[in-house]
Amino acid sequence: MVSGNKKTPKLILVGAGPGDIELITIKATKALQSADVVLYDALANEELLTEYAPNAQHVFVGKRKGLHHVQQYYINKMIVRYARKHGTVVRLKGGDPFVFGRGFEEMDYAMKHGVETSYVPGISSAFAVAPLAGIPLSVRGVNAGITIVTATASDGSLTEELDWAVAGKGTVIILMGVSKLNEIAQLVSTHRGHSEVMAVISKGSQQDERKLFAPASSIYKESMVQGIETPAIIVVGKVVASALQLIKSQLAAAEIQ
Amino acid sequence: MVSGNKKTPKLILVGAGPGDIELITIKATKALQSADVVLYDALANEELLTEYAPNAQHVFVGKRKGLHHVQQYYINKMIVRYARKHGTVVRLKGGDPFVFGRGFEEMDYAMKHGVETSYVPGISSAFAVAPLAGIPLSVRGVNAGITIVTATASDGSLTEELDWAVAGKGTVIILMGVSKLNEIAQLVSTHRGHSEVMAVISKGSQQDERKLFAPASSIYKESMVQGIETPAIIVVGKVVASALQLIKSQLAAAEIQ
Repeated sequence: MVSGNKKTPKLILVGAGPGDIELITIKATKALQSADVVLYDALANEELLTEYAPNAQHVFVGKRKGLHHVQQYYINKMIVRYARKHGTVVRLKGGDPFVFGRGFEEMDYAMKHGVETSYVPGISSAFAVAPLAGIPLSVRGVNAGITIVTATASDGSLTEELDWAVAGKGTVIILMGVSKLNEIAQLVSTHRGHSEVMAVISKGSQQDERKLFAPASSIYKESMVQGIETPAIIVVGKVVASALQLIKSQLAAAEIQ
Repeated sequence: MVSGNKKTPKLILVGAGPGDIELITIKATKALQSADVVLYDALANEELLTEYAPNAQHVFVGKRKGLHHVQQYYINKMIVRYARKHGTVVRLKGGDPFVFGRGFEEMDYAMKHGVETSYVPGISSAFAVAPLAGIPLSVRGVNAGITIVTATASDGSLTEELDWAVAGKGTVIILMGVSKLNEIAQLVSTHRGHSEVMAVISKGSQQDERKLFAPASSIYKESMVQGIETPAIIVVGKVVASALQLIKSQLAAAEIQ
């Protein structure tokens, strides 16, 4: 029931992009400007709230050191409660809400409870981080497929999909895999050879981004030496070698200038 | 050689997003505002030029009915020539430049010729179109992988990667595949069963978007009846069934209100 004075309960699922505050879309900034309440994740850049939704109520619902993780069940309930009470709820998620982001569950729950929903896509870290670090996701004649895969199943083992993806020939972007880097590098050695160059990119698109290129046989040891931190993505595929080619071109360009 | 009066030759590769003018990033609008010349594709929304780069020189380098396709080789040369003559060249590409967009070749060529390069990611149609049409790319417990694949090899046959992706278990987004829909539906029938529901989304994110859901056994016939046009993407995977669940929730929500 919607009375004349009460705002319609709405949920807008919004992708905040990979971290850089300017990598949000115009449509997402407008959604934030229309928000009565913003529920935001640890991965969404908090500067976006002060910049685009200074007067909305800001509610942190992410996982963070020292704080308890707000369970998905409670987030779903909060969305419906805030929407009924205040009107427009923006659910701001790092990256894109539909790429391993549980946006589906939130949207489905809200709809089932009579909340109007809409979605504004964001640039997923899974797609932007590698190119920002100089690794193209595709190169003509090199690969015709790109697979994004989560590394770990709910029981802590490597996912079946990861094994399948690495056994293929295309580009593989592995999310949440740094703690399993040793096993992943062994998989790559088995399927694509010991000398296959892999990349690990930590804190992509941000000031303290770090990247590591090394063959499958030594990347784990290298990551230990260099102390790679999370969040990080792992890139497997011939495109990694293309990145090294780009770096050479960059050096050549510096000489020309 | 850069004299005091002459601008430094620069290339900024910019992703324009899937078509909706508001699905461009803040960073991309700033890049356009800094442009002396914009080289743009058929897939990039031309309104972006009038909105953000009204005073820059606009050069169309895409393929379009009745016009000759400007070869990649000439685009590479044009980038270097314009950058040397005018300063900052923005290369505006539909979607994201690194997702089957040949951004790599342009960046590599420009670097080798002494042009400074940078990159602003865009939302790729490959990732945004399905969620905008209500199909999540991932659902917890349903899939741990998402593969984006081009359908056709340079000789016109289906790509090996397409066969491999459909034989897997995850979500598959197929680009440039509508003309091969019959063969693709047969592949899906073989690997995932005749009753596996597929989706075709044409002109995604735009006013005249159309979507078709049907089992692998009948989707080709349905697409003929309905006259699905390109550009379109094809979606394969259990997430398509999740989309139908969302549609049911939407109907339920309408009843609650």
